[in-house]
Amino acid sequence: MANSLGKLFTMTSFGESHGRCVGVVIDGCPAGLPITLEDIQKEVDKRRPGGSVASTTRAEEDKVEILSGIFNGRTTGAPVCLLTWNRDADSSAYERIRFIPRPGHADYTAFVKYGGFNDFRGGGRFSGRITATFVMAGAVAKQLLKHIGVEILAHTIEIGGVRAQSKELDEIWKNVEKDPLKCADPEAAKEMLRLIEQARESSDSLGGVIEGFALNIPAGLGEPVMDTLEGDLAKALFAVPAVKGVEFGAGFSAASKKGSENNDPFTVRDGKIVTATNNSGGILGGISNGMPLTLRVAVKPTPSIASKQETVDLRSTQNASLEVKGRHDACIVPRAVPVVEAMMAVTLCDFAMRAGLIPEVIR
Amino acid sequence: MANSLGKLFTMTSFGESHGRCVGVVIDGCPAGLPITLEDIQKEVDKRRPGGSVASTTRAEEDKVEILSGIFNGRTTGAPVCLLTWNRDADSSAYERIRFIPRPGHADYTAFVKYGGFNDFRGGGRFSGRITATFVMAGAVAKQLLKHIGVEILAHTIEIGGVRAQSKELDEIWKNVEKDPLKCADPEAAKEMLRLIEQARESSDSLGGVIEGFALNIPAGLGEPVMDTLEGDLAKALFAVPAVKGVEFGAGFSAASKKGSENNDPFTVRDGKIVTATNNSGGILGGISNGMPLTLRVAVKPTPSIASKQETVDLRSTQNASLEVKGRHDACIVPRAVPVVEAMMAVTLCDFAMRAGLIPEVIR
Amino acid sequence: MANSLGKLFTMTSFGESHGRCVGVVIDGCPAGLPITLEDIQKEVDKRRPGGSVASTTRAEEDKVEILSGIFNGRTTGAPVCLLTWNRDADSSAYERIRFIPRPGHADYTAFVKYGGFNDFRGGGRFSGRITATFVMAGAVAKQLLKHIGVEILAHTIEIGGVRAQSKELDEIWKNVEKDPLKCADPEAAKEMLRLIEQARESSDSLGGVIEGFALNIPAGLGEPVMDTLEGDLAKALFAVPAVKGVEFGAGFSAASKKGSENNDPFTVRDGKIVTATNNSGGILGGISNGMPLTLRVAVKPTPSIASKQETVDLRSTQNASLEVKGRHDACIVPRAVPVVEAMMAVTLCDFAMRAGLIPEVIR
Amino acid sequence: MANSLGKLFTMTSFGESHGRCVGVVIDGCPAGLPITLEDIQKEVDKRRPGGSVASTTRAEEDKVEILSGIFNGRTTGAPVCLLTWNRDADSSAYERIRFIPRPGHADYTAFVKYGGFNDFRGGGRFSGRITATFVMAGAVAKQLLKHIGVEILAHTIEIGGVRAQSKELDEIWKNVEKDPLKCADPEAAKEMLRLIEQARESSDSLGGVIEGFALNIPAGLGEPVMDTLEGDLAKALFAVPAVKGVEFGAGFSAASKKGSENNDPFTVRDGKIVTATNNSGGILGGISNGMPLTLRVAVKPTPSIASKQETVDLRSTQNASLEVKGRHDACIVPRAVPVVEAMMAVTLCDFAMRAGLIPEVIR
Repeated sequence: MANSLGKLFTMTSFGESHGRCVGVVIDGCPAGLPITLEDIQKEVDKRRPGGSVASTTRAEEDKVEILSGIFNGRTTGAPVCLLTWNRDADSSAYERIRFIPRPGHADYTAFVKYGGFNDFRGGGRFSGRITATFVMAGAVAKQLLKHIGVEILAHTIEIGGVRAQSKELDEIWKNVEKDPLKCADPEAAKEMLRLIEQARESSDSLGGVIEGFALNIPAGLGEPVMDTLEGDLAKALFAVPAVKGVEFGAGFSAASKKGSENNDPFTVRDGKIVTATNNSGGILGGISNGMPLTLRVAVKPTPSIASKQETVDLRSTQNASLEVKGRHDACIVPRAVPVVEAMMAVTLCDFAMRAGLIPEVIR
Repeated sequence: MANSLGKLFTMTSFGESHGRCVGVVIDGCPAGLPITLEDIQKEVDKRRPGGSVASTTRAEEDKVEILSGIFNGRTTGAPVCLLTWNRDADSSAYERIRFIPRPGHADYTAFVKYGGFNDFRGGGRFSGRITATFVMAGAVAKQLLKHIGVEILAHTIEIGGVRAQSKELDEIWKNVEKDPLKCADPEAAKEMLRLIEQARESSDSLGGVIEGFALNIPAGLGEPVMDTLEGDLAKALFAVPAVKGVEFGAGFSAASKKGSENNDPFTVRDGKIVTATNNSGGILGGISNGMPLTLRVAVKPTPSIASKQETVDLRSTQNASLEVKGRHDACIVPRAVPVVEAMMAVTLCDFAMRAGLIPEVIR
Repeated sequence: MANSLGKLFTMTSFGESHGRCVGVVIDGCPAGLPITLEDIQKEVDKRRPGGSVASTTRAEEDKVEILSGIFNGRTTGAPVCLLTWNRDADSSAYERIRFIPRPGHADYTAFVKYGGFNDFRGGGRFSGRITATFVMAGAVAKQLLKHIGVEILAHTIEIGGVRAQSKELDEIWKNVEKDPLKCADPEAAKEMLRLIEQARESSDSLGGVIEGFALNIPAGLGEPVMDTLEGDLAKALFAVPAVKGVEFGAGFSAASKKGSENNDPFTVRDGKIVTATNNSGGILGGISNGMPLTLRVAVKPTPSIASKQETVDLRSTQNASLEVKGRHDACIVPRAVPVVEAMMAVTLCDFAMRAGLIPEVIR
Repeated sequence: MANSLGKLFTMTSFGESHGRCVGVVIDGCPAGLPITLEDIQKEVDKRRPGGSVASTTRAEEDKVEILSGIFNGRTTGAPVCLLTWNRDADSSAYERIRFIPRPGHADYTAFVKYGGFNDFRGGGRFSGRITATFVMAGAVAKQLLKHIGVEILAHTIEIGGVRAQSKELDEIWKNVEKDPLKCADPEAAKEMLRLIEQARESSDSLGGVIEGFALNIPAGLGEPVMDTLEGDLAKALFAVPAVKGVEFGAGFSAASKKGSENNDPFTVRDGKIVTATNNSGGILGGISNGMPLTLRVAVKPTPSIASKQETVDLRSTQNASLEVKGRHDACIVPRAVPVVEAMMAVTLCDFAMRAGLIPEVIR
């Protein structure tokens, strides 16, 4: 396993779904950054299942604790360890399916790779619960990005095939806050909710697409040719369970455009060089060009579904079938939105530090 | 800049489009691997512009030289340095556009990041020519993967909006070899060629989509939660200029599927555990599951187009316009196919070494 | 700060002297390794101040807790987080010296580097207490090394200028266990104790030299030319506070030898290739040669002394003087012995994994 | 093998003693640094064997070539590749000793690790010739350090047991330049020369000690607790063949001092905080304190000696003996002096970049 991300601003995640805790160590954070437990808790709360039908009503409190690296309300330069204790979970159901891997989950691959010694309870290290640690690190990263004026925003743009209408940035910002699905288009959100409800009733699940923005990124972030802005962001985003595709700017749709359509003309606006369009998603040659960074992430439907599925028994190498009862999120897309923001924030912090934009001490 | 890729099998690329050479150092390659100059040259030749209309007829010979690390026909364990000398290029045209960045290119971002000291001639370090170094490293990686039976294959599945019909793997393998566009569907290829010709005539360019397979990957490659198979492959692929999206298995189309459709049921075939479908693209939890690894890469249309474009003058920060005459590839997708294979090979070698599947000495 | 060590077997240390805890995340440890809390506690107890005069009688209990990565008595492949909670410490004395840096300590450099935001209480991140986290990681590493038969042993060979007589390995092994100074020569130990007592009485402190062995190392560990066995071991050992010199085999004394004296002749013993002498310390060209690995580490006298010292006031940039009362170890050499063992173990684990000698799963 | 060093300022060395070339890729160097071929050649020439008896008279011209990364007399931000072609060497003598490892050399360990596939000619990758690549990288690093005012100086302080008298810095600077042994004490140098001549006549060799300084280092370099200034410098220095010990400040002699002697009192001089003594070698807690950084490196006697030595035959695993005729350096210490400077420069550049002291663009 390799559980660290970032070259100068480095996060190392640890913990399992049904173990004692999930936590993260953030190393390389400059000293002097003002940050409170509330700043972090607020971010972690965003991935809490809402009261909505979109998510399970299982209460996960996820109270964050600061174990190191913050003193008198500021980072000290030492590694910041944050964690949340797991509450007692009933793992008995998992014992039953230990050797009966759930389709779409990491049960089988983890069994093969770790020789069956992996903690299988609740998906262990492969549980979505691990993303709480990403959000903790993201909370620190967001705070740090604020110091260079960078802001991160993600929102749901598709669920179950329903696509939200394109909105202006300030409308997205405003609407996402209050929508349980984190979708900026209220009409689409209504239809998405209906589909989620329907999926839950039929013991099924839905996927979707999340869009992310980073605003006020200065031109010059990214370390090509290998550590491109796209490459390192994509790597961070693929660490989020269920993500199966990442694209920037026009992305896959650029493939069917002509060069004359896809090239973004440069122009001068208010004395600043900008591009008239933003098909590049704010990135040229792996380096930010000063325009808003835009990306989209494909989230597959939650593999946890209650209906009967075909699988195998790892002990006998025979076909078997499986029914996993219990509460499942019929759609995890809304809960993945803050996780996408977190991974963007962590990666951009690292690039900002590599480009010398963040000093060793925040004063 | 950061020009190295890989943790144990590491490639470091160097060189510029109009400098003396482009080359690569491959560090961490096991000793004893039989490899000849021809093995490497053969791969590099694949990215050579064909005689077809698809690519410029400018002859790039790209004769590879071995500078270190190979002795008596085998790797020695020492770093392998490979390079190809650049032939005299006329850089005068670039002097003219030094401060007039071409839309869609890295001219502007490189100027900002490197303070105007970057070698701008022919795109310098951001030229597609740099991918020759990726292919050199990929040639070594492919040879190494052969020792654990893994094979890599990529092909063109879309150009200018025309989509190739899905084919069986052996047909793809056979057809790609002889098709100038590296497309396995002859009907589609004919139409693609027509569109490319048309784009060229109208001083425009086209993008497309490349699909990649890795076959006979054993289950267990990948180092989650941060170094996932998807994440590291995506990072490597985004290092290829013009790539703007990467997806695995069902990818973005998974977003509109239901869990019951998207989950791949496990089943036993010939005593081996496989999945009945392969929406996961052979990856679960960031780890290979033994099924073919499949991915798709979106390639934007070549930004180099001959028609007039709007841009700015970096000296005066004023609007300007630009016409770049000369021979350009109207579609670089076919030439990117071997580069995609190379980046897949390099990344999978690294993971195979990390999983202990490749010994320190090949005997 | 950078608090991680190792490429495949990676430890990340966190925590401060007077913060909530000190802990470590060990990432990359193979699955299936049997390990108990007792195995780890036993190692941590070795660095506990003995009842002897050598160390303070302040009781540090250092009860280790396992937070993640171990399940049913075996590692799971997931990151192992270990920590020990700090007991309430009286930090008031440190407030007084916050701006009056203690000579020989990191107070001044930490103040400069972290802009005064560092947690200064008890030395914060620079306290010897941090080495408890090294020992926790070392405990896991030692357990893993056992699987390839490698054993680590360190002992005190010099304190206050008194040099222990050279002993046979099995005698060292036996004597070190029971000696409070971890010195294998009882005569020398007696004199060392006397000097330590004398230093304490005169409010002073002593340094010394620790020797480390790694036994049964197979030939072939080390990744030159940059990641040499010497280089990575030295780097790990210089992370231990107070270490100011590291040498291998004949070390500095080799500098005054002739080649004919210093070269170790190869010879065949019991069908195995060995060297007749071991001036190389078991390392040639940065790679282990199968002989015992030997190294020595210079430990400076504890900078914490009770006598009055000259220093400066950082607020006024004026000269000042300082008296730090309280219990101090008059000699930390014996407590550093298990820390040297830990750093050797962690580094050798990493090299053994890099050389493919430790499988992904211990069965 | 692992042939890269440095996190942000990274050098990757390649090439073999009797291969086509030895070279280095320097990645991460800021753009805009003025540097000429002469700047680099001058450093490389320093490790050329002088006309003195100290070194072989074999002419190695080592003409450096710039392959990439420098354009119009300045670095471009792209990787800088430098190399020197090897001249035809007679490798026939090495064929004879291929399976008869020379004591004190890496022949045996390389044979084991690389399965006999290593390029054994002239020591291959383990030849002292490889250090030419270190010096090339060091030349760039020194140029970069000049921009923050840091200067590096190393000199010979011991050969064959003869110790040079301590001199003032400016005298060292002046004398080292002109002394063939790079020793600042002319009396000692004379005696050293006599011993070297004697060693050569008796087919033997001598080792020695090199001292290195880094001047004008600002306080705050170093990234503890793992990437300490001492640790990373030691790692870099142990990459130099024949180095068997590294110490900082008082080093091993600190072990026999008392705390009250070894602690360096802080004091204010010309409004600046300094220490009255410098037993710490300018490093506290792994971080520079603004005083001169001082270190010493133990160099073992050249293992290449002409007298008959006992060894084994790797084919038969039988004892054998060996006589290696030919020209050998009876003492490589003087030639290692610029290599020590280079490794110091490369490491300090990396730390200066990590501390944000060197901008992305030098203007």
